[in-house]
Amino acid sequence: MIRVSIIGGSGYTGGELLRILSNHPQVEIDYITSRKLDGVPVTKVHKNLRGIEALEGLTFKNIPPEDIDSDFVFCATPHGVSMEIVPVLYERDIRIIDLSGDYRFEDIEVYERWYNRRHTGKLEGVYGLPEIYRESIRRGKLVANPGCFPTGAILLLAPLIKEGIIEERILIDSKTGVSGAGITPTDTTHFPNINENIIPYKVISHRHTPEIEKELKKLSTRDIKVFFTPHLVPVTRGILTTAHVFLQEERDREELLDIYRRFYRGEPFIRILQEDIPSLSGVRGSNFCDITLEVDRDGRVVLISAIDNLVKGASGQGVQNMNIMARFDEREGLYFGGLAP
Amino acid sequence: MIRVSIIGGSGYTGGELLRILSNHPQVEIDYITSRKLDGVPVTKVHKNLRGIEALEGLTFKNIPPEDIDSDFVFCATPHGVSMEIVPVLYERDIRIIDLSGDYRFEDIEVYERWYNRRHTGKLEGVYGLPEIYRESIRRGKLVANPGCFPTGAILLLAPLIKEGIIEERILIDSKTGVSGAGITPTDTTHFPNINENIIPYKVISHRHTPEIEKELKKLSTRDIKVFFTPHLVPVTRGILTTAHVFLQEERDREELLDIYRRFYRGEPFIRILQEDIPSLSGVRGSNFCDITLEVDRDGRVVLISAIDNLVKGASGQGVQNMNIMARFDEREGLYFGGLAP
Amino acid sequence: MIRVSIIGGSGYTGGELLRILSNHPQVEIDYITSRKLDGVPVTKVHKNLRGIEALEGLTFKNIPPEDIDSDFVFCATPHGVSMEIVPVLYERDIRIIDLSGDYRFEDIEVYERWYNRRHTGKLEGVYGLPEIYRESIRRGKLVANPGCFPTGAILLLAPLIKEGIIEERILIDSKTGVSGAGITPTDTTHFPNINENIIPYKVISHRHTPEIEKELKKLSTRDIKVFFTPHLVPVTRGILTTAHVFLQEERDREELLDIYRRFYRGEPFIRILQEDIPSLSGVRGSNFCDITLEVDRDGRVVLISAIDNLVKGASGQGVQNMNIMARFDEREGLYFGGLAP
Amino acid sequence: MIRVSIIGGSGYTGGELLRILSNHPQVEIDYITSRKLDGVPVTKVHKNLRGIEALEGLTFKNIPPEDIDSDFVFCATPHGVSMEIVPVLYERDIRIIDLSGDYRFEDIEVYERWYNRRHTGKLEGVYGLPEIYRESIRRGKLVANPGCFPTGAILLLAPLIKEGIIEERILIDSKTGVSGAGITPTDTTHFPNINENIIPYKVISHRHTPEIEKELKKLSTRDIKVFFTPHLVPVTRGILTTAHVFLQEERDREELLDIYRRFYRGEPFIRILQEDIPSLSGVRGSNFCDITLEVDRDGRVVLISAIDNLVKGASGQGVQNMNIMARFDEREGLYFGGLAP
Repeated sequence: MIRVSIIGGSGYTGGELLRILSNHPQVEIDYITSRKLDGVPVTKVHKNLRGIEALEGLTFKNIPPEDIDSDFVFCATPHGVSMEIVPVLYERDIRIIDLSGDYRFEDIEVYERWYNRRHTGKLEGVYGLPEIYRESIRRGKLVANPGCFPTGAILLLAPLIKEGIIEERILIDSKTGVSGAGITPTDTTHFPNINENIIPYKVISHRHTPEIEKELKKLSTRDIKVFFTPHLVPVTRGILTTAHVFLQEERDREELLDIYRRFYRGEPFIRILQEDIPSLSGVRGSNFCDITLEVDRDGRVVLISAIDNLVKGASGQGVQNMNIMARFDEREGLYFGGLAP
Repeated sequence: MIRVSIIGGSGYTGGELLRILSNHPQVEIDYITSRKLDGVPVTKVHKNLRGIEALEGLTFKNIPPEDIDSDFVFCATPHGVSMEIVPVLYERDIRIIDLSGDYRFEDIEVYERWYNRRHTGKLEGVYGLPEIYRESIRRGKLVANPGCFPTGAILLLAPLIKEGIIEERILIDSKTGVSGAGITPTDTTHFPNINENIIPYKVISHRHTPEIEKELKKLSTRDIKVFFTPHLVPVTRGILTTAHVFLQEERDREELLDIYRRFYRGEPFIRILQEDIPSLSGVRGSNFCDITLEVDRDGRVVLISAIDNLVKGASGQGVQNMNIMARFDEREGLYFGGLAP
Repeated sequence: MIRVSIIGGSGYTGGELLRILSNHPQVEIDYITSRKLDGVPVTKVHKNLRGIEALEGLTFKNIPPEDIDSDFVFCATPHGVSMEIVPVLYERDIRIIDLSGDYRFEDIEVYERWYNRRHTGKLEGVYGLPEIYRESIRRGKLVANPGCFPTGAILLLAPLIKEGIIEERILIDSKTGVSGAGITPTDTTHFPNINENIIPYKVISHRHTPEIEKELKKLSTRDIKVFFTPHLVPVTRGILTTAHVFLQEERDREELLDIYRRFYRGEPFIRILQEDIPSLSGVRGSNFCDITLEVDRDGRVVLISAIDNLVKGASGQGVQNMNIMARFDEREGLYFGGLAP
Repeated sequence: MIRVSIIGGSGYTGGELLRILSNHPQVEIDYITSRKLDGVPVTKVHKNLRGIEALEGLTFKNIPPEDIDSDFVFCATPHGVSMEIVPVLYERDIRIIDLSGDYRFEDIEVYERWYNRRHTGKLEGVYGLPEIYRESIRRGKLVANPGCFPTGAILLLAPLIKEGIIEERILIDSKTGVSGAGITPTDTTHFPNINENIIPYKVISHRHTPEIEKELKKLSTRDIKVFFTPHLVPVTRGILTTAHVFLQEERDREELLDIYRRFYRGEPFIRILQEDIPSLSGVRGSNFCDITLEVDRDGRVVLISAIDNLVKGASGQGVQNMNIMARFDEREGLYFGGLAP
């Protein structure tokens, strides 16, 4: 049994952590913090969790990180806020899973340029993608949970990049549900504006671009360039990522699928689809990442992955990291199928 | 050719007025005002209208009502704002169609109680439901355009009420699209909150209740009571109204439909459905109101109407009123089918 | 540990049973049958469940009920099919939870009239609404799982009916998601037809009407009449039920809520909301039923409930019944919050 | 005034032709044919058009093409059916706009390979993209109306291809609404399956690929290769096309936008967006095609277009072609803004 706190628990990722952790047999929730909601029952905000005994009496607390002494802390805080909080926990040897972008970059200058703010200083951390960094995560004190788009894109491309058989340019065209924009209403997320609509955004300038690129580069023996374009679509949950790359030498679909099956052998949350195509319905509410690919003429490969942006793309992956760090079964609390239809 | 201005043109009803009026062969748009968007091209806000020659060069103006000398003015202003503007236009003999609730009530106390504000004072106006008040509208100087729910509900019940054959209690259960909540984002209209959801609201206290009731009372020889409950559903446009009433004496469906066909004979925008059931798809984007009914055991009647809340429920009906006042063909600019699928 | 089979497992309720039972610690799945899909892996149909170890290797079997010797059998078969299968299991002392309407009626004539088919013959069964019939269910051999609309409506009205303080006429206006129409595509469920639409249907003739009425009558000391009108709305899961009734004597909201809190004291899946209003988001994917009410002038009461039609409205309630029959903790496998956003 | 018939008028493109033509001041509708619906009023199928006087009394006729003597005939028939009908009309000098793929290919072998059927024989036709082939269309006897994806893709890429400044490989990632799949329900279009979902399909093998490629090749002085991947998204109308290409030499955004503005100067239905990004909301229900682009590092260009698949992508473009052929104002009956919100 471990004691776990959530800092910044009033948003979607905080709610999703609660949903998952309240069902986790080896977790006791310590604190869930909020600056504005001190004293408010958590189920008043996360109404879907009303009636769950484990959460009865749990209220948001406006408590500083100095006063938290849990075994694990999830920072579900925005970019820029995490880097004020994490160092305080870090020096007190609390194990941290940070859901923001603040500790995802080895190169702090890249972070500062793309996130357009000064960083408070690097800390020894590990990029929390279990399928690639499981061993480091196990020993990690600070895990930087990957971004939602990067999770779908890196898992989709890693095996092929590592194999070293594709050309330099990697085109990634992603489609995300609206929950990825967070819990705060905006013009874009106003129902009449995004319903029956598709909105491309930051088509050459999304800050998940450098995150994807630096991770893929680490796997590659040659130079690569990532070109990333996201689109907002009228669904609540899910990211569908379509990557377009070119093979340097001829390979057929079966050979490529074998590369994927080998790379992900034994992975509990990766499903390589032979006959079906990934779609959001298959992963909604679950921690799975579905992947397939097709080989076109001229060595073009279309790769497709689907994840739930709030689960494998955020809170679920965070719990998966916690399970690894705590040496639990990695699937604990996470091993359920998606909600379909 | 008449000259027309729109006061408060940056919202959904303003945009819809522009969409309709820019296609109206006898209308020239004078001003479209906005306090905040002075100088901004209207198509920068209403992007669906980009490229329409009639609107090229048209910008929002922050112009006081004193400086408007159009033949007709639409006030697409919120409740409380209209009553500051309308009197200024009224005394200068400009003909006004007010889309707010400010002039819908003969009894100013009812307004003040339900809208929770002081009124600046009654003006001689007419309730702008053409199917009932066409002659008064024709001569009207100030037309109070009906609310969206009242349009669907009054048109649905008027023939039966007038016939004097139903019991006192009238239960109205309405389902509205999200555009009815206006252009400003809120928690409720945040896509992840209303998508895949149905939200009942103000279930006993919606201020369209007294508007429906006072209109139906005028048609009735006996006392009636309106009980009205709205629900928000995840569609952008449309109101589906289901009314449940009881007959005082036995009548079959055909007799009742005959009452409706007689009452609405010659009406260009009312469609009494014999075989189909009204649904939003049939009226989306159009000025039509579809109506049908069924007779259950024990004299229960279920009545159903469908309108587009922004067209027949607001701007389209406003233009219909303008056509009547200007003695144009009532269908001018409005006589198109809905958008389906 | 009990062994459980599902007859007719290729539809939505079959998939939902699998989703729930595959996470149930005391259940081993024996057979899941399908006439057409013999030999096909279940996760080829229920793709959201791919990768779940407990379901690996599980294929649909075309196996007659005679060859099933599980401890419990769920019949997720259509009306008319169940009554061919259930007797075979019944006489072999297998405990049965039937999701069809075939065994919901004590009065076989009512069934035959509303379902328009001959019945193969009554069996000793119990109506599977745990909040009302828990003790009979515990001892039951055959449980007739309630319909989706009846679950939402009966739970919503039972306390008030039992209290004997409302008038005879009960108006129920329900809104259901499209998954209630089943897995087979039709014109109505074709996305362009129901998206952005609301479709009232069987507005005076839905066969859940007599099911609701006979159950409420059993709770009532006086005569009651149920008038039920359903609407199809563009969401996948969920039923929102709005009931309109009149009090015989004055009561305020707090008194009525107290009646509900007393009636449902200790119920693990009923949540009486004091401050919020039920909506689909609060129950999606969960076995909860949310309820609240408001008291209007003239003793009108608006009551609102929300359930997930595939969980509390079908498969979840089925598992709840199984838990009761097997004397497990009633919440086993079902005690998770909904998926929100 | 011209007399116009529609062959195969019961589907979505037939309905959309009716919606547009019933508002066209110079068109009289002659026949609208259907094999199965002989004698049925057209507004019984296209219910959104009920109450429009111009369509009163109009019924579907099961009439062979030999008996049609209109000035213009739209074939809204499926691939394979058109090529049985068109020759009959063609030899009788009726001017034809065919919405199927049957006459889009100069090279009949390409057609036969991608459509997997024998062709009845080439006819002198013109590819009906007015922005490129206006003069030939004017003189045309048979116009092959472009496919929905090709319309969005070719208009998006033509100026850049013609300029001869991009590399050979053209990656096109399209997102389409469900109405593109037609009026017949399928598993894929079943609401619970596509709602809250994104489904990539025919990711390397969609038959619009050769149509796009052969048209772009005609504009290019060098070899090009089109790689096309479509996705189905849960909206009813609209196609959002994202193209990813690379410049051969450095150009900035402004230079490229200038190329587009020059290429499309005077075009009534093309809107080159300087500040906004195309989205479905801007074009829904209208004949406009919105276009913009961004220039990324390394000469990558992201191009985005939005159309309504049933209007500019099918029936609207058909009417635009008819207007050109009949020497009407090209905008007649088509010059209205989209429906937003």
